Amino acid sequence: MPAQAGIPKPKTTSDAEQVSVETRIMKLDLPPGGFRLVSGKFLKAVEVAYETYGALNPAKSNAVMICSPLTTDAHAAGYNPGYERAKDRIGWWDDMIGPGKAIDTNRYFVIASNMLGGCKGTTGPSSADPDTGLPYGSAFPKITVEDMVGVQRLLSLQLGIEVLEAVVGGSMGGMQALQWSTAYPDKVRKCICIAAAACLSAQALGFEIIGRKAIVNDPDFKNGDFYRDGIIPERGLSYARMIGHLTYLSALSMHEKFGRNRKEDWDESRFETGFEVESYLNHQGDQFVRRFDANSYLHITWAMDHFDLVARYGSLDKAFAPSQAEFLLVALSSDWLFFPEQTRELGKVLLDQKKIVSVVELESPYGHDAFLLEVANLSQVIYGFLEKPAFDNGGGPGGRKGGPREKHARGNGFGAARDIEALASLIEPGSHIIDIGCGDGVLIDSLYKSHGVTGIGIDIDLDHVVECLRKNVPVLQSDADRGLSLVGDGAFDYAVLNRTLQEVKKPQLVLNEMLRVASKGIVAFPNFAYVGNRLSLLTTGVMPVSEALPYNWHDTPNIHLFSLDDFRLLCSREGIEIEKILYLGETLISRLFLGMGRPNLGSEFVIARISKGA
Amino acid sequence: MPAQAGIPKPKTTSDAEQVSVETRIMKLDLPPGGFRLVSGKFLKAVEVAYETYGALNPAKSNAVMICSPLTTDAHAAGYNPGYERAKDRIGWWDDMIGPGKAIDTNRYFVIASNMLGGCKGTTGPSSADPDTGLPYGSAFPKITVEDMVGVQRLLSLQLGIEVLEAVVGGSMGGMQALQWSTAYPDKVRKCICIAAAACLSAQALGFEIIGRKAIVNDPDFKNGDFYRDGIIPERGLSYARMIGHLTYLSALSMHEKFGRNRKEDWDESRFETGFEVESYLNHQGDQFVRRFDANSYLHITWAMDHFDLVARYGSLDKAFAPSQAEFLLVALSSDWLFFPEQTRELGKVLLDQKKIVSVVELESPYGHDAFLLEVANLSQVIYGFLEKPAFDNGGGPGGRKGGPREKHARGNGFGAARDIEALASLIEPGSHIIDIGCGDGVLIDSLYKSHGVTGIGIDIDLDHVVECLRKNVPVLQSDADRGLSLVGDGAFDYAVLNRTLQEVKKPQLVLNEMLRVASKGIVAFPNFAYVGNRLSLLTTGVMPVSEALPYNWHDTPNIHLFSLDDFRLLCSREGIEIEKILYLGETLISRLFLGMGRPNLGSEFVIARISKGA
Repeated sequence: MPAQAGIPKPKTTSDAEQVSVETRIMKLDLPPGGFRLVSGKFLKAVEVAYETYGALNPAKSNAVMICSPLTTDAHAAGYNPGYERAKDRIGWWDDMIGPGKAIDTNRYFVIASNMLGGCKGTTGPSSADPDTGLPYGSAFPKITVEDMVGVQRLLSLQLGIEVLEAVVGGSMGGMQALQWSTAYPDKVRKCICIAAAACLSAQALGFEIIGRKAIVNDPDFKNGDFYRDGIIPERGLSYARMIGHLTYLSALSMHEKFGRNRKEDWDESRFETGFEVESYLNHQGDQFVRRFDANSYLHITWAMDHFDLVARYGSLDKAFAPSQAEFLLVALSSDWLFFPEQTRELGKVLLDQKKIVSVVELESPYGHDAFLLEVANLSQVIYGFLEKPAFDNGGGPGGRKGGPREKHARGNGFGAARDIEALASLIEPGSHIIDIGCGDGVLIDSLYKSHGVTGIGIDIDLDHVVECLRKNVPVLQSDADRGLSLVGDGAFDYAVLNRTLQEVKKPQLVLNEMLRVASKGIVAFPNFAYVGNRLSLLTTGVMPVSEALPYNWHDTPNIHLFSLDDFRLLCSREGIEIEKILYLGETLISRLFLGMGRPNLGSEFVIARISKGA
Repeated sequence: MPAQAGIPKPKTTSDAEQVSVETRIMKLDLPPGGFRLVSGKFLKAVEVAYETYGALNPAKSNAVMICSPLTTDAHAAGYNPGYERAKDRIGWWDDMIGPGKAIDTNRYFVIASNMLGGCKGTTGPSSADPDTGLPYGSAFPKITVEDMVGVQRLLSLQLGIEVLEAVVGGSMGGMQALQWSTAYPDKVRKCICIAAAACLSAQALGFEIIGRKAIVNDPDFKNGDFYRDGIIPERGLSYARMIGHLTYLSALSMHEKFGRNRKEDWDESRFETGFEVESYLNHQGDQFVRRFDANSYLHITWAMDHFDLVARYGSLDKAFAPSQAEFLLVALSSDWLFFPEQTRELGKVLLDQKKIVSVVELESPYGHDAFLLEVANLSQVIYGFLEKPAFDNGGGPGGRKGGPREKHARGNGFGAARDIEALASLIEPGSHIIDIGCGDGVLIDSLYKSHGVTGIGIDIDLDHVVECLRKNVPVLQSDADRGLSLVGDGAFDYAVLNRTLQEVKKPQLVLNEMLRVASKGIVAFPNFAYVGNRLSLLTTGVMPVSEALPYNWHDTPNIHLFSLDDFRLLCSREGIEIEKILYLGETLISRLFLGMGRPNLGSEFVIARISKGA
């Protein structure tokens, strides 16, 4: 993707001039009984390790909560000199958070914390139990993602923040972001959920379950009370970590990283192979048992496994119904821990509820961990989504009314402005539209400003998607042929297909899909039977190239050429009524034939409003 | 896929009338030192458990060797009353092997055996060491896939069989099939390798490594000498099995099978979840530790991890160079243990060597285990490939000379027979061609019979692929746009694109690719500028539908319409020389314009021979 004005290139903080950050501990102010968990049990005291970056504005309206994945700590960004190893001193998501970065600390006050149940400063099973002064161990109660987010909510309140401008999280952090938007429906303006889902898949559950089994069955686990003698369930914990690591990577990224290279020596009597992937796994296991508590791993993964908004609320519909947040759901193409299909399903539910939601599917070969490792495109998307404030006072092209917007002016090839004007004459002001093949979102944005129209776009191109997000135009990153499958029956007043019908693989299906998702359709297309095209083919014998059909035959996206009369015939066959039709043409010959009442000859371009006949 | 004459529907042997089979033990006749392993060590004695199905013909030329996957035994097919559990009495690949099935025991003499290192009757680490009379345990030497196949070779020799008509295997069995064709290059006529590769990927290695680590580190493993006290390394072995099971399934199949359903009770204090997938894994683990030996698991997986034809021979080129087998490589689309890319890579090597090879990629949602669970399409493909004998005496459209063939007669839409005749006039007899979009293989098959032409087809459609296999026409199941990426530079004399250019997504790329893989190209296409089409569009104003262009605009596979002159212009721009061109047309007006020397107007259909200009 080419660099675009105003969108940052990711960069890592590593220079000495970097301003230092520090991890602080907040002791939560709790009622006399302590913090009540979902289970009904209480934690008498809760401390939270957290960091903040950027400045809180006087209105306290610019706070962004970072929700952390499984095993990271509160040090998400910047340089923290308190860590022993140099590489730990840079925050785990420093590529994403900082001045001028995707989550821009010049504009936002960013909060990151260690999660409840963790072992990096926030209360967890290795913390001292106030009753005994000794580590909780087996006495630590089961916790849930709801509890973790409850703790984050108390943290933000104690920081003086009532409403968050955004919650952002990847992987288990994405689950927390969803939890925020359902548990605190009016306290979150924007919810960014990356590489996550409303629950784990059966396959992901399977890997977690085996890992926990290995820990619990390790003779050194001692039912969780292993702190006294300093012997920890190393083997079980390391197997769990190794299994986890394989699920974070893709087959391709592992192949590139290791292939079948071998190290110098290995112990064949122990069935070791010497393959680099074995050394890597050993290393990951060894590192992890030194830095992470086995009980924390059990509690946190157990909480993740049980996170299930359907089980909690009865349905995703009920879970999200009260939420006022705008959603950005990001899937990673090669993620097989949380796979893109799960993201699309969640997007479908939110669309059904007429939430403001964008669904982006980033191409990446690097599997689940791409949200940590390969943030160039992710940065563009998140920066775009966060660029304008959420429309918490109503308004915006996504769906809610009011609010003045700045002027946009942008051409879109042949007669874009004129097309939009013509198209606007076919729809009711204030209606809700879906624009299939929406490009940079200029249609919805313009119609929003001129006619109070709200809606959503569908486009496959990432540049277009980012442009839409920057305009606050919600967008589904998908091709037309399959994007509509996310949209429920009659969800829109109008479905618009502007210069796209000739580009889709199955025009017939798309037309019918349009009239499934919307009461009426608007189809704008170049007329292949325009007399100029006919004469061009007749006289030159080569495929016509014109302003309305600007491509060569072999590299054209227009894979189904057709004429106005072809369109009429198809509509008639499909029982589709053409309610109104506009014939557009600029050339003399076009005007001539249009004047003669011969639109199939005269129209260079056609805009039709269609509906399902009675 | 619709049922086709002569191709069986898979069926499971389960009725009481089923003829019983029995597992026999063959003591191998060995030289005095015993069986020499690749490591240089010796096994003093080797016994092999095996079964056979069908009858060996007098020429002993109809034997098929089944190579087994990781943990199965010699009981591959039929009903063996010797097993305790009813479900074990049916062979593990009974859907594939039997009278009238894909591997048809009415025609073939089928041999299945337990692999070396196993624990089901063939010599392995739990067998008695002749030196001590006690189980080998830690004294069992490391083995390789080469050793396993060496044992199978001795078994077949002792059964009186010098040359196998086919070796067939899935997963680790597919590795064995490849090993057969490289180690015994003139003893295997057909090699069928399903869901396997020339080595494991780094990701697959990773899962294996963790599993073995869990076994070896289990305190009950006792360095492999755990037979005496009857306490086996249950935990480690069960983790290894559970991990393995997850890799055999796809995310989708697990979701369908388990979702997030829960059982009645579970032990939360042990961090159990009650999810069905947990019960399933527990069950798989429990069953496996009862039926499988931990040392066998270690040795066999270790052998699989080390199977690497590149490491063994220096390159895949060298590995396969001597092989005389015809290859069928089958990948499964959702297999992520052996992924389709690996199969394609292997196919590319064999193509480069001008082997007779077909590469089929079956759509299946069921992951790696689909080769055991979902055999309907696999049966068709294997049946097709095995239907005609291999051309061991030379000949056949795949590549070697001679051998009479039965007459085929088959129409292929507009002017198929005439097209083929015209096309044949543009190529040298006896040349080697690749037919892009080959349909049912009729072109290569006809040209083979009439002009001694050999070659391979590319087609995406499974019905077509099966038809090609049945004709012994090798085929790559792929679309034109990407199938050519498997083919090396200048591998063919001619690349043929018969009525396909208008269907491909990137015509320009495909034309250039054709002239990369072959010295010359033959392109046959309908001419959109044919005067009939022009007049039709001019007068009717709808897209023309004719014999050469038989589709409606909205459901046509012809996504790039173009004229003869368009084609000329593109060739000129790409530096492609049109060496010879044939103008075809049936109508009066066509003949008229052709007679007038106006081929762009007159030709309904065009066949051009092209090459890269000097």
